Amino acid sequence: MYTLWIANKNYSSWSLRPWILLKALQIPFEENICFFENGKSSHEKFSRFSPSGLVPCLIDGDKTIWDSLAICEYVAEDFPQVWPTEKSARAWARCASAEMHAGFSALRQQCPMNVTRNEALTEISHELQGNLNRIQQLWQEGFDKFEGPWLAGKHFTAVDAFFAPVAFRIQSYQLKVNEHAQQWIERIIALPAMQEWKRAAEIEPSIEH
Amino acid sequence: MYTLWIANKNYSSWSLRPWILLKALQIPFEENICFFENGKSSHEKFSRFSPSGLVPCLIDGDKTIWDSLAICEYVAEDFPQVWPTEKSARAWARCASAEMHAGFSALRQQCPMNVTRNEALTEISHELQGNLNRIQQLWQEGFDKFEGPWLAGKHFTAVDAFFAPVAFRIQSYQLKVNEHAQQWIERIIALPAMQEWKRAAEIEPSIEH
Repeated sequence: MYTLWIANKNYSSWSLRPWILLKALQIPFEENICFFENGKSSHEKFSRFSPSGLVPCLIDGDKTIWDSLAICEYVAEDFPQVWPTEKSARAWARCASAEMHAGFSALRQQCPMNVTRNEALTEISHELQGNLNRIQQLWQEGFDKFEGPWLAGKHFTAVDAFFAPVAFRIQSYQLKVNEHAQQWIERIIALPAMQEWKRAAEIEPSIEH
Repeated sequence: MYTLWIANKNYSSWSLRPWILLKALQIPFEENICFFENGKSSHEKFSRFSPSGLVPCLIDGDKTIWDSLAICEYVAEDFPQVWPTEKSARAWARCASAEMHAGFSALRQQCPMNVTRNEALTEISHELQGNLNRIQQLWQEGFDKFEGPWLAGKHFTAVDAFFAPVAFRIQSYQLKVNEHAQQWIERIIALPAMQEWKRAAEIEPSIEH
């Protein structure tokens, strides 16, 4: 069975991606949580199990998979439902996930994931609005091409998991998005596994950033 | 046949990755080059063929694959030699590539790819040295586990392509790395396709950043 190392559910957006993927697809795994250090780098602490000193990190027997996108591809070799079945939907889902993996730095920096926050952001920077515009354009392309209700078609796949932290961010910072985007956000946050993640986040110790 | 959109060979590190992968594996493709705008954003220009407004972008019939890592996975479905054959080497190669895709921001920002530069960097910041340390640790892990001469074993795969821009950066900014790392850098830069890329970079119009 897989073991998945994650950090605080309230803050660790990268941890949420493989966690929600495995939960939503009912792929069994054991969860190991290692909380962020308070007020200092967690690199040394995380290096005990993760070669990059970062989370998430999946352990499968003698193999260590230390990156969220690589975890998706690794798991997909045994569970092909991680990606859409149809070739063009699968290509699109991988592009959108990889764009999230490398991009959207304004959203990451100005709205760090904080699941239990519920307070509007006072100022939307030009860069943040640019990120939000691109996200809505991207999601709309998915809905138009693959007809929903999930980003790449009828089933929840890794691309939904990759944008799950964005759903929490848009909700907790009260960012404005169009109706289709809002519907997807409400759909994903309503998943039992997302509610389970949120309840756990609520009772964790909070940390200073 | 694939069509690959790229930008200036001197500057576009993201373009180099799929280009060198396809060339090194002798996978046929047609190259379309679209130069960066001089002194302003190229987003609008690139949006004519790439939905994210970024390069590289692979066109395959009616499919558009607009991210470098997603291009690797897309091509790998038809050409499995993109990734190592052995499962643990493949998992490692995907982790290292995805870590490069999302990380190493100090190296990216302080040493933007400039193939024709040949001038030492005057100051190595703490963050840049941290990136260089992690890169050497990562590559060494690959050499130790898979016994070279390439990062994940006997054959050139996507993980070598993903670090090809780092090879040019270390060379052109004259950054110091250990002997094993230096050997890999010399090996990859000696590839006929890397030399072809470099010669093309030398005769391109230069731009202001």
